[in-house]
Formats: sequence, structure tokens, C-alpha cells
Amino acid sequence: MADQGVDALLLSVGPDLPWLIGYEAMPLERLTMLVVPVDDLPRLVIPAFETARVVEHPDLFAIDGWEETDDPIQRVVSTVGAGKTIAIGDHTWSRFTVDLQAALPGTSWRRAAEVVGALRRVKDANEIEALQRAASGVDRIAAALQAGDIPLIGRTEAEVSSDLGRRIVAEGHAKVNFAIVASGPNASSPHHHPGDRVIQPGEVVLCDFGGTTAEPHGQPGYCSDITRCVYTGTPDPEFAESYALLQQAQAEATAAAVAGAQAQRPDRVARDRLADGDLARYFAHRIGHGIGVEAHEDPYLVAGNEEPLLVGNAFSIEPGFYVPGKWGARLEDIVVATADGPRPLNNADRSLAVVEA
Amino acid sequence: MADQGVDALLLSVGPDLPWLIGYEAMPLERLTMLVVPVDDLPRLVIPAFETARVVEHPDLFAIDGWEETDDPIQRVVSTVGAGKTIAIGDHTWSRFTVDLQAALPGTSWRRAAEVVGALRRVKDANEIEALQRAASGVDRIAAALQAGDIPLIGRTEAEVSSDLGRRIVAEGHAKVNFAIVASGPNASSPHHHPGDRVIQPGEVVLCDFGGTTAEPHGQPGYCSDITRCVYTGTPDPEFAESYALLQQAQAEATAAAVAGAQAQRPDRVARDRLADGDLARYFAHRIGHGIGVEAHEDPYLVAGNEEPLLVGNAFSIEPGFYVPGKWGARLEDIVVATADGPRPLNNADRSLAVVEA
Repeated sequence: MADQGVDALLLSVGPDLPWLIGYEAMPLERLTMLVVPVDDLPRLVIPAFETARVVEHPDLFAIDGWEETDDPIQRVVSTVGAGKTIAIGDHTWSRFTVDLQAALPGTSWRRAAEVVGALRRVKDANEIEALQRAASGVDRIAAALQAGDIPLIGRTEAEVSSDLGRRIVAEGHAKVNFAIVASGPNASSPHHHPGDRVIQPGEVVLCDFGGTTAEPHGQPGYCSDITRCVYTGTPDPEFAESYALLQQAQAEATAAAVAGAQAQRPDRVARDRLADGDLARYFAHRIGHGIGVEAHEDPYLVAGNEEPLLVGNAFSIEPGFYVPGKWGARLEDIVVATADGPRPLNNADRSLAVVEA
Repeated sequence: MADQGVDALLLSVGPDLPWLIGYEAMPLERLTMLVVPVDDLPRLVIPAFETARVVEHPDLFAIDGWEETDDPIQRVVSTVGAGKTIAIGDHTWSRFTVDLQAALPGTSWRRAAEVVGALRRVKDANEIEALQRAASGVDRIAAALQAGDIPLIGRTEAEVSSDLGRRIVAEGHAKVNFAIVASGPNASSPHHHPGDRVIQPGEVVLCDFGGTTAEPHGQPGYCSDITRCVYTGTPDPEFAESYALLQQAQAEATAAAVAGAQAQRPDRVARDRLADGDLARYFAHRIGHGIGVEAHEDPYLVAGNEEPLLVGNAFSIEPGFYVPGKWGARLEDIVVATADGPRPLNNADRSLAVVEA
């Protein structure tokens, strides 16, 4: 904070707060906000009747409970004081930011990511271990999918999505973040919402799923995120050829994700490879995002991001191709940049699995 | 907006957007924002590859898809223009608000609730029907709990909470918003996080649960929220006496929630009744909150809120008492203010059910 010229950091809902103190603010109209002055003990402003939920660390922060008819904005304002530079948590509800801004004229407002982002993006050994547990859990689900243990043909995308969700929880996650199931032409929509379409024989089924791990009370969970495609029957030869190129592109992009390389490099590598099959124009999104306590976080592996990947960065490598109205595919692993090179945390089979019946 | 002097409304994540156009923004770092100028067609700024998720209404709003290397903030800025009064969605991530503020100097910032809140808080017949469906779903779960069909003794709070969550989904909800299970002394924490405590014979088990209904694609879900307490064996006489007073207080507060009364009135009525048993000092929270597409929304039934309840308002009536370290109880229904008086949408038995084994 001192390096960044920030006088106070204000954290509310979102991943920064549990990452720092193990407490996740309830996403409600009653304000919970950790006030972190650059030169004083942090103070957790929180509804009085929710203080029992907090695992206390008096050496790290004080607890300031407010009653139902108190004004929590005023509690924060009086702690911070006027005329400062404040970094506000990225996910903080704007209703609170607008109220704070009205009560703190002459303040300079910044994003908390400028302070916390650099810390969160480099994972320590415990964090990588948690990410590995998360990844291994969804790897087992992917293996079940590829083995045909999760029925597809004749069921709706929504039913299969529910199945994936149940398995995510059974594999040690506290919550399901998403369970995309996109079949046939729907696979050409990268963030397709699983619906009533019944899965047919002879088509691709793209499954992209993940959650946040369950951890002991007072500790933050870490995220999983994987994408695998299966084909219901013998693949269309054109699709199989495109998929093989995608798999090659994903392997090369993973190999390029070395510490020291620019964050945009893996994206470039995959795009160049996909261009061989005229598929680059169907690769509609960046190749990856960081992952940790948040499903998407720094660093973003996108064209234009010249910052270097660092040892300890964890991110997705997920090239795809999406041919509108026809079909689509994506192949995604979580990868950690280590001193010994890129290490995938997901290791489920990456080829196009064929499932019958 | 014209009445409020607002030039543009900006809606992102949160309930306002699905309530208006049936589309829920993905809670991700890629900005989705509906720009509503006071005098022009609204414009949905959205990641290009997510446009396939939107149910289009070209008569209501235009779609402006941005590519991965475009700057979505600039799209919003160029549509709005400088020097205006802007109402920003209450749940909008502050990272976007901070970026917009830097790009739009001389702008006056307000909360979208000032525009949308007054509209959302008066429910039409379709909305009340959706809330009734949601309420009937959780009523059936409450009845199962009271009938002893959900095992309690010997199981952890977390296990019972998972059970409730599964039933919430089975009863037509798309997602579980919360499933508080607080047993014995834990019931003295109103927002207790269900944990490893094993439920014992001869104690209270407070269950507060709800979700958001599943609706056809392109339509927003509505919320349920109910609290019932059961006792594992013959209730302690002192507790039973306190609970009877709570039930009486809840009935009187419900009867007081008539259109035209101040929103703080039911809270006062319940507090006065609880004072008879010296329980008012243990009633640690306001008596209720509005409910609709959001689990907590206007109007808030809290001391100091003098605005009148209106026909079509839907809200919880949920007095409670929480004796630290000893026990606690809450009784909660969703109630609609109608022209014919208050009408509870929840009608599960309100007495203290005794469950054995």
C-alpha cells in the first residue's frame, strides 16, 4: 500500500477478504467491510449479529459490530478520514461505493486489485496444493464422462449439467461455479446456458465445469475449471481433424506458458497453430485467465498483455473453435508456471473421447 | 428517470438487469452493462461471444458485442457522454465504477435503486404468483421437517443443510440462496454457518432456507425464504414459553403489516409483544426485508423507516430471540400487502414442532 500511495484499503464482498482473513462477507444489503489503514490495525465493520461467524484473529484485525439502526457507512468514514487515497475492493457493491464517495469528498479512488492483485497472483505451496486437489476432483469427473459413465444421449443438457454439479460437490467442492453442457450446434456458443435441448447421437458435447473447494471454517476455498469434449458416436471426420489441431494448439500453448514469457504469448502460439486449419478466426476468446480463490483473476492471457508470467502463477490454457450454428470445441487445463516449466494440474485424457449410447 | 433527474442508468450484475430484460449478467471480469439513456433506446454492452445467451428484444434494447481486445468501458463512456447524472446498478462491481468514474469526469453518481427500487418493490400479479410458487415449495420442505421426515438427531448441521439444499432444488428452484441449520446454542447466532456440530436430543433446531425459482430461459426467478424451528424431543418449558410469545408476536406483526402503515410498524409491534417476556433485548435484528427477484430488497421493515407499505409490497415478517450461548428461535413467513390486508404466502404450521429420533 505504501508503495502504491494508498492510505486505506476497503474490502467487502468478493475473494480478497476471505483470501486475507478467511471470512467471506455475506452478499447482502448490510455492509461488511474490512478497513485496512496503511499504518494501523485493520478493522472489520460487520453487522453485530454476524460477528459470531468470524474466526477471530485479534492480532490481525479488530471487530467493529454495528447494530440494525446504526450507520455502517459512517463507521467506515470515521475510521478512514477525509482527503485520502482509497483502494476499494473490486467486487464491492457500487451502492456502498457511491455512499462512501458522497461521505468522503476530496478522496482519490483506486481499485484494490492494484494492491492485492500482485499478492494474490503468485501462489504459495499451500495454494497450489489446494488448486491441485480441486483439479484432481474435476479430473475424475472428466474421466467418468469420457468413460461413458455419465449418460448423454437422450438426456437434456440441463440434466447432464445437474449431474456434473452433483459430482462437483461430491468431489469436495463447497459450491458449483458453472457446469456448461453444450451439445451439437450449441457448442458454438462458448458460454452456452445448458437448456432443454436433448443430446443426439453423432454430435459433440462440450462440458466446461468447476467449483470452489470446501475448506475448514475460516479458510478460503480454491477453484477448479476444466473443459473436455466428447462425441456421441464416431466423430465427423472434419470435426475430428479440427479437434486434433486444437489439441496440438493446446499442447503448444501450454509448453509456451513458461515463467518470464509475456502473458499474451500462449494465446499467440495457439492462434498461430489454429490458423493452419483456418480455425483461428473461430477462436473467439482469449486463451486463459488466472485462477485461485476466484475463478477468473490475474493474470489474463490475452493479446496485448505484455506482463511476464511469474513462477507461482496459476492459469487456464483453453483454446477453442466455435463455428456458428455448426459446432464448437474447447480444451482446457489449469496450469502452474513453476521454476521447472509449466505444470498442468489437470491431467484427464485430452483426446476426443467417443461415447456410445 | 426524468422525475429523478437521471440522464442514464447503468445496470450490470445483480437483480435489476434480469428483472428488466430477463438477462442475468455473468459475474465475471468481462463487463456486461445495459446503458439506459433517459431519451434513447437502451444498449446492452456485452462480450461478443455471450450475445448468443441473450433473448433478443430489438424493440426494447440494442446489443453491442465487444471483442476480447476491445475496451468495454469506452463503449459505455461513448454512449453516455460526459457531464451527466448517472445512476449505477447497486451490485455493479466497484472496479467498473472506478474505471467509469476516471473516464467520465464531471459526472454526478447516484444509486440505481433510486430509479428502479420504486418500480421493483410493487409486485404485479405475475410476480406475486411466482413468489407464491416459491413459498409453497419451501412450505412443503418445512412440513417434511416438522413431520420428522428429515432426520436430525445424530447428524451434523452441515448434513441437514445439504438435505435442505437438495430439496430446495427439487421444489423448482434454480439455486439455493441459503440453508441455515443452527442447533442448540448455535441457534443464538442469527446467521449461523452450518457446521460440524452433531444435533442432540432435547434442543432447538432453527432452519432458515430459501432459493431462487427456475424459470424459462429469458425470465427472472423469484425468491423464497422461510424459517421454522423444531425441537428434538419434549421442549424445555422456558423455551416453549418464549416460543409461544414469539409466535404471538409474529402473528400480531403480520396483522400490522397493512398497506398505509409505516414500514417500521410491524417491527415495533413485535418488539412490544416480546417485551412482555423480557425477550425484546434478544431480538437482535429488524423484523423484515422486501423480497422479489432479490432475496433482500426494498422495503426494509426496520425502526426508523417511516415510508408507508404499499399494496403489492412483498416482505418477510421474521421476529426472533437469541440468548447468547443458550438458544434462539425465529419464525418467518413471506407476506404480501394486499388491498384486503396482509396475506402470508407461507402457511406451514407455525407452532414449535416436536420431532423424535
